[in-house]
Amino acid sequence: MRIGLLGTGMVGQTLSGALARIGHNVVIGTRDPEAALSRTEATRPGMEPFSRWHGANPGVSVETFSDAAAHGEIVVNATAGTASLDALRAAGQDNLDGKVLIDVANPLDFSAGFPPTLSVANTDSLAEQIQRAYPGARVVKALNTVTASVMVDPQGLGGGEHDVFLSGDDAGAKDEVGRLLREWFGWQRVIDLGDISTARGTEMYLALWVRLMAATGSAAFNIRVVR
Amino acid sequence: MRIGLLGTGMVGQTLSGALARIGHNVVIGTRDPEAALSRTEATRPGMEPFSRWHGANPGVSVETFSDAAAHGEIVVNATAGTASLDALRAAGQDNLDGKVLIDVANPLDFSAGFPPTLSVANTDSLAEQIQRAYPGARVVKALNTVTASVMVDPQGLGGGEHDVFLSGDDAGAKDEVGRLLREWFGWQRVIDLGDISTARGTEMYLALWVRLMAATGSAAFNIRVVR
Repeated sequence: MRIGLLGTGMVGQTLSGALARIGHNVVIGTRDPEAALSRTEATRPGMEPFSRWHGANPGVSVETFSDAAAHGEIVVNATAGTASLDALRAAGQDNLDGKVLIDVANPLDFSAGFPPTLSVANTDSLAEQIQRAYPGARVVKALNTVTASVMVDPQGLGGGEHDVFLSGDDAGAKDEVGRLLREWFGWQRVIDLGDISTARGTEMYLALWVRLMAATGSAAFNIRVVR
Repeated sequence: MRIGLLGTGMVGQTLSGALARIGHNVVIGTRDPEAALSRTEATRPGMEPFSRWHGANPGVSVETFSDAAAHGEIVVNATAGTASLDALRAAGQDNLDGKVLIDVANPLDFSAGFPPTLSVANTDSLAEQIQRAYPGARVVKALNTVTASVMVDPQGLGGGEHDVFLSGDDAGAKDEVGRLLREWFGWQRVIDLGDISTARGTEMYLALWVRLMAATGSAAFNIRVVR
């Protein structure tokens, strides 16, 4: 499958690497591909420099936001949430129209340090902003409630007995994303929360997520809904 | 133990009834006890009228906010979150100073219908507002992430294999509340998130909680952190 993945950060690297390894044709999109590929220093502690990551993942082509979105049958927004609308503008409406757009970003604002706040919350969400800006895109919020390593290997955590959530206005797109999460990564427990406004719930959950991460000392966790 | 419980709603009724049944000396506080006791209509669908509830729970004394808080060795805030600061003002600083104050309220604003928004979020929380207003109280946020019936019977849901969270600045108060949640209701899995500002996390989680309730059709659920 041709996948256009926007964002070269930890989530973009992990998702595109995992998708390429299982045989998908992945283009990772960034503002300035040459600058990204020449980066020899990590942009965040614990991450490897992008050039080194790409050396280990030569199957992933690195192109502009626009070329990556044009390439994808499906587009994945894995940019930093506070930069997502700019990135999608660069990707271009024509390259998004009619496509399933999986939004895995969180609008976390770290400008005042830890804990981050959300740049949009309570009466709106990043996913809704994206859906409003690109009404022709079939936006599905998903995977934003787990760290990158859990996104691509849910079975590696508690035998996969934990949940991933979907939010979106397009039922067909949600069905497809639910199916792809199982097929790509082995997600067994997928909860459809409802329309795109339910993404407020999963984005605001990040306020608990960051505190759980701090309290437990690890980002490798998820929640299971117990009924 | 003498417990002062503020609020006559579903949570106040359920908590005070359960605490009285296991032998505690519970006074439930409300603005106007006579008015509350003469209420023969339910204030919310699915709830019984307060007078009928009290008829079935005669061991719980119904007094003013101030008398209830004065009575308690421990005070529990089970008022509606948007009314909590007013209720605590009526309870009186002198009746809160030095005491453990368990805050189970959520600042849910239903004025625009469903989904509710939070009247405070992101850069502050109700629990922090309460702690700032009553610096002598030992505020511990707890139980606000589950519906009333789960608060008092965690074992009745998935064998108790799900989590309750504590937030507070006073380590000794959190230890005591964690012990009481086990002793009173049988909570086995208690996660200390950190200082009182971590209550932003559990309060903002309500934005996900209300969507999970709507999607699953039941409030009788909780989350388990899977590591």
